This record gives sequence, structure tokens and C-alpha cells, in this order.
Amino acid sequence: MKIICEKEKLIKAITSVVKAASSKTTMPILEGILIQTNDNEIKLTTYDLEIGIEYVMDCIVNEQGSTVVNAVMFSEIIRKLPDTEINIYLNDNNLLVIECEGSLYKLATMNAEEFPELPKIDIENSIELEQNTLKSMIRKTIFAVSVEENRPIFTGCLFEVKNNKINVVAVDGFRLGLKSNFLQNAANDFSAVIPGKTLNEVNKIISDSFDKIKIGIAKNQALFEMDNCKIVTRLLDGEFLNYENVIPKNWETRIRVNKQDLQNCFERISLISTSSIEKEKKYPVKLLIEIGKVTISCTNQTGDAKEEIYVSTEGKNLEAGFNPKYFLDALKAIDDEEIFVDFGTNISPCVIRSVEDIGDYEYMILPIRMKD
Amino acid sequence: MKIICEKEKLIKAITSVVKAASSKTTMPILEGILIQTNDNEIKLTTYDLEIGIEYVMDCIVNEQGSTVVNAVMFSEIIRKLPDTEINIYLNDNNLLVIECEGSLYKLATMNAEEFPELPKIDIENSIELEQNTLKSMIRKTIFAVSVEENRPIFTGCLFEVKNNKINVVAVDGFRLGLKSNFLQNAANDFSAVIPGKTLNEVNKIISDSFDKIKIGIAKNQALFEMDNCKIVTRLLDGEFLNYENVIPKNWETRIRVNKQDLQNCFERISLISTSSIEKEKKYPVKLLIEIGKVTISCTNQTGDAKEEIYVSTEGKNLEAGFNPKYFLDALKAIDDEEIFVDFGTNISPCVIRSVEDIGDYEYMILPIRMKD
Repeated sequence: MKIICEKEKLIKAITSVVKAASSKTTMPILEGILIQTNDNEIKLTTYDLEIGIEYVMDCIVNEQGSTVVNAVMFSEIIRKLPDTEINIYLNDNNLLVIECEGSLYKLATMNAEEFPELPKIDIENSIELEQNTLKSMIRKTIFAVSVEENRPIFTGCLFEVKNNKINVVAVDGFRLGLKSNFLQNAANDFSAVIPGKTLNEVNKIISDSFDKIKIGIAKNQALFEMDNCKIVTRLLDGEFLNYENVIPKNWETRIRVNKQDLQNCFERISLISTSSIEKEKKYPVKLLIEIGKVTISCTNQTGDAKEEIYVSTEGKNLEAGFNPKYFLDALKAIDDEEIFVDFGTNISPCVIRSVEDIGDYEYMILPIRMKD
Repeated sequence: MKIICEKEKLIKAITSVVKAASSKTTMPILEGILIQTNDNEIKLTTYDLEIGIEYVMDCIVNEQGSTVVNAVMFSEIIRKLPDTEINIYLNDNNLLVIECEGSLYKLATMNAEEFPELPKIDIENSIELEQNTLKSMIRKTIFAVSVEENRPIFTGCLFEVKNNKINVVAVDGFRLGLKSNFLQNAANDFSAVIPGKTLNEVNKIISDSFDKIKIGIAKNQALFEMDNCKIVTRLLDGEFLNYENVIPKNWETRIRVNKQDLQNCFERISLISTSSIEKEKKYPVKLLIEIGKVTISCTNQTGDAKEEIYVSTEGKNLEAGFNPKYFLDALKAIDDEEIFVDFGTNISPCVIRSVEDIGDYEYMILPIRMKD
């Protein structure tokens, strides 16, 4: 194998694939990048047996071949080289030689034959989105994914296509995030639960552009397909929550509030709620909704806090307790200037909704029973 | 106590003092900020029994008084408030009330009488520097301070005034950093060793400006005095290294090299020297100096690296081993475009010196005995 690459292009390729290389494994080959030439291209592949990433790039290939090299080491060295052409070849001792101006690096390699093959995927359903749309859908839901491994199905996001609309849903038992978008092209209905870890990686790789990304769903796998890059992931197995049935459709109390104002109040009150002095303890905050006003308050051992904010209110007065973190996570994900927050009783979930476009997103948050 | 402060001013004051508040202590009062009014000023004080910081600022004082409040909590709340005037007062329950627009926070306080007094300081010697000069002298030496507690004297920097020149010196047994500056005003000779921890804090507080800072030295303490702010610190006790005797004055081999080029080579070779695969191991790098060329090389279990760089050389050829980290630390601290690196034998220290102004700084690095 003997190739000449532009540094900048190679960095882009390595950055895309390096995330699927294992960092802790008993199989060193999984820590590697498989480099394969193919005419005037090279393909870089990483695969930790959960997520696999392939990236194809143009370069000058002077001798065909393939090898596996430690991903982190290769990535760090290429990153530090001068911004010019890099010569890369396998020498007679099977070391990968990297040559660039006065720098000469030789890295141990592993046998390309031993690199595990990415699963073959029989796509049953697929949709196409703009990358910025997918990026935003992931950002607006992923924080609500469960981190508890005891219900694995909730460590992923539901991707559901229904009536030419895509709904992405995450839920962790205390709150739920839902983001919907209409599809530009007709598609068959399907649903699949994609691991949160995969979506985090996908999110880092895709750009904030109108470039397309194709999502293909097979029986046990999903495939994300872009121009130069493919990401393969396993799907999570099991029954996801029937989310439509759990989000309350009606409300007894509704407020309409400036999103940033409410977020600022929650940010300040979180300082008291999650006291930096007693790190392990979390104190719930109390929301008191009266005509034209919301009062958010919290008391801990070292002090207490009260925030008043003037809002439009409809319906009954209400007092209920909440974990402010769940509000903050949802509010940070919202780009709208104004939002509705809809409440039932003080023991039923509240729902944050768009004022502009009800159904665009819904964040459901369960209350905390207050002691008093 | 009842005051009205501008948020921005108060943040500046808190930011300056908060670093000397203890974070882990069995005496909660040391985690506090002492707030004292004095006519139309307040003084904020923190003191962890090693470093004490006082900051005085103007504000509207409607009722004189004093109190102690947890530094981190106070700082975080003030930081998150809207950018406007803040009302602060002690209420009847001895809670510190912070009021700003719709926000109302009440924090537990401690008794101001119980706050330890800062040591009285009898200044014996003092000098005045521009803050940017002190900042640069700290930055250019502090990295060489020892982190080993078994020789406490080397966990500080020597501040030595001699012949109207100030020398700041740090040494950790493997390398030494020296930065000198001429004083603008005549001063008596003295020397004192100031804890590295204090200098780190001083460095964060002082600005990159021509504003003056006075350094006063007493028997066991030093005092840094600026416009609104005073920093008191203990001195380290013991005999510092007689540094002038250990830095070689002569050389057998001298190179003159572009600083950034050499730094880039060491940065790349460090990837092999401190392999990310075997984190605990460090491999020395080998410097080979021949006429007009330096070759830096390193071999570890996973690969090897060679960097060639063209330089002006004088004197003998040489081959010696070094820890590249010590070179990198020194090179990063140097602002000059070109430097001398002077070598003796392969078991004597090398010294990095300024080309422009020999004596401006000196970085001495001990070699590592190579195996082969």
C-alpha cells in the first residue's frame, strides 16, 4: 500500500471514523482503523461491534493494499503534521510509514484480514432528511434518553415514521422529549429504536447543512448514508413506550411565557436546588401559578430563593413541585421565543409546547410530590 | 448591613477574592467571603490560612455592617443575576438577602467576628513592577516548580532582587527556569520563595496591563498590592538552590534554531514519546546534532519517529537523550522567534537562551541517559 493524501482531507476522514474505534477492548484490532485502497480512493473503516463507520476519500494511490493501524495514534500524528501532502506506505517490516517534510513516523500495523466485517444490511424502509434537520431532531430529544441500563430500550431514541411525518422520541421515566418533522417525500410507516450512543456519534459527524442523509432501517440494524460516509448501527430490541397515550392532551392551567426569561429563572434557582455545598442533595422547586404570574421557589439548608415572572395565564391556579433540571434541559433545546406550559393537577405531568406550531415538539415533565 | 451594588463591579470583586476561599475544609468559615462596609465602600476578604485576598469597591451603603457568606454560593448567584443594580442586606433572621428584579435569594450567614484576621505584615523590602511584567515572569517560570511535596522549598518560585534586577527562578530537580528583568527604580537586594499556588492565583488576578503592582516582603510573608486589591501569602522556609552555580556558562555544541519549528517537532515526537496506548510509559527522545542539522528520534513499542530540522550549528557533534516535555514547557513559554540551545556533553544539562538578549531567560534541562 502506497498513497499520497492531502492532510486536510485525511483529517476530515479520520475525524469521522475515529469515534467508532474502541478505546477499551481486549481485541486490539477493534482499536484500529482499517485502511483499504480502491483504485484512486481509500476507504477508512472503524467498527466496535456496535457502531461501524466507513469513509471514502480520493487520494493518489501508487500501490494498492490494505492494513490496520491504531486509530488514536494515527489520528494524533496526522493532526500534528504540517498542512501539506503526506506520504503513507507499508514498508518491508509491515510498519506504516508516514512521511511529511522532515517528519518520519513508523507505526505498528495489524492484519487487515482480521478486521471484523461490517454487518450486511437488508434495508426494508428508508427516508431521506436534510442533515441539519436530523441534527436538530437529535439535539432536541437526546438529553431525555435514559442513562439507566436496566431498561435498555429507553437508552435509545424511537424513530417513528407515520403519515409522512417523522417523530423522534426519548423518555427516561421522569420526562419525555418529542420532536416531529414532515417528510418531503412519501415514505412507508415504520419504527425503530436507535441507541443514544450512535445518535451522539451521528450528530458529531453530520453537518449543519442542507446536504442529504439517508436513514435505512433493516431488521436489526440501521444505516446512515451520506456522500462519503456510512454509519451502521444495531437497533435496540424491545417494546418502546406508547408515547401518544401518555402525553396529556388537555390542560387545566396554561401559561404562555418568554422562553429565555423562564430559562434564566430556572438557571438561577438551580443554584439553590442543586446546592454546591451539599452536592449529593437535590431540592425540588415549587411552581405557584396565579393570574398573570408564576412564582418559582426553593429552600435548602443554606438559604432560599424566589423568582417571580409575569406571564399570560389561562385556567386554574396551581401549585406543583418539579426537578428544575428537566425544565432546563427542555428549555435549552427550544429555539422558539415563546412557549406554552400546560399543567393538569399537581400530580399530573406538565407539557411544554410550541405556541407557533402545536405538535412541532412536546416536552413532558413529571412532577415531584412536595412534602409540606 | 444594607448595600446597593452594580452587578458588573461586584462580579469583578468576587472573582478576585473567591480563589482564596477554601473549598475543602473542616472550618466552614474559611469557605466564606467576609463582607464589611466602610463608609461608601465594601471590603471583601477571603483567607484559607495560606493566601488571603482583600478587595475594596465603591457602592451605596445604606446601613453599615458585616457578615460572612459562603463564597461559592454567593459568587454563583450574583453571576446569574440580570446585569443591573443588586440590593443586598441582612434581614432579621441573619440571612443575607439578595434582591434583583424578580429574583429574591436568602443565604445563611456566619458570624463576621469568627473570620480569622489576615496576618499583620511588617514590610522589610519592596519593589514595584508593571502587572504585565509580573504576569510574564510568572508564566515563564511557574511550570518548572516542583509538584513533589518532599522538598517543599522547590514548590515555590525564588524572587531574588540583586543589583536592581529581579530574577524569578523555579526548579524541580530535572529542569530549571529563570526569567530576569531590570527594575525601573533602585531597590535593596533581597530574596524570598513564594508558593507556586499563590503565584497561580496572583497571575489570575493581575491584568495584562501597565498598571503597577507592589510586592512587599516581610520575614515570613509577602504582600501583593494593587489598586483595589491586596494579596497576602506565607513564604516558603528553607534554603533555595544556588542556581547561578548550577547553570553551565560554557558550551561545547550550540544550535541556533527557529523556536516554533523546534516546538512543532517536539510536539509531534511527544506523541510517540508519551504513547497514548501505554499511558504509564514515557520514552526519552534522542537528539543528534550534526553540522547544520538536528535529528530528533524516538522509538516505542508501537512505532518509531524521526524529525529532521535544519539549524545553524557551532562546535562538536553530539548525541543525547531528553524528556521532550521539558523542552516543550520551556519552548511554549518563550516568545522569541529564534533561540540558542547550548549543550555540554551527553550527561551535562543543556540550556536554552535568548539570541537577542543572553541573560533575559535561561531554561536548563537535564539529559536522560540513553540505554544503547
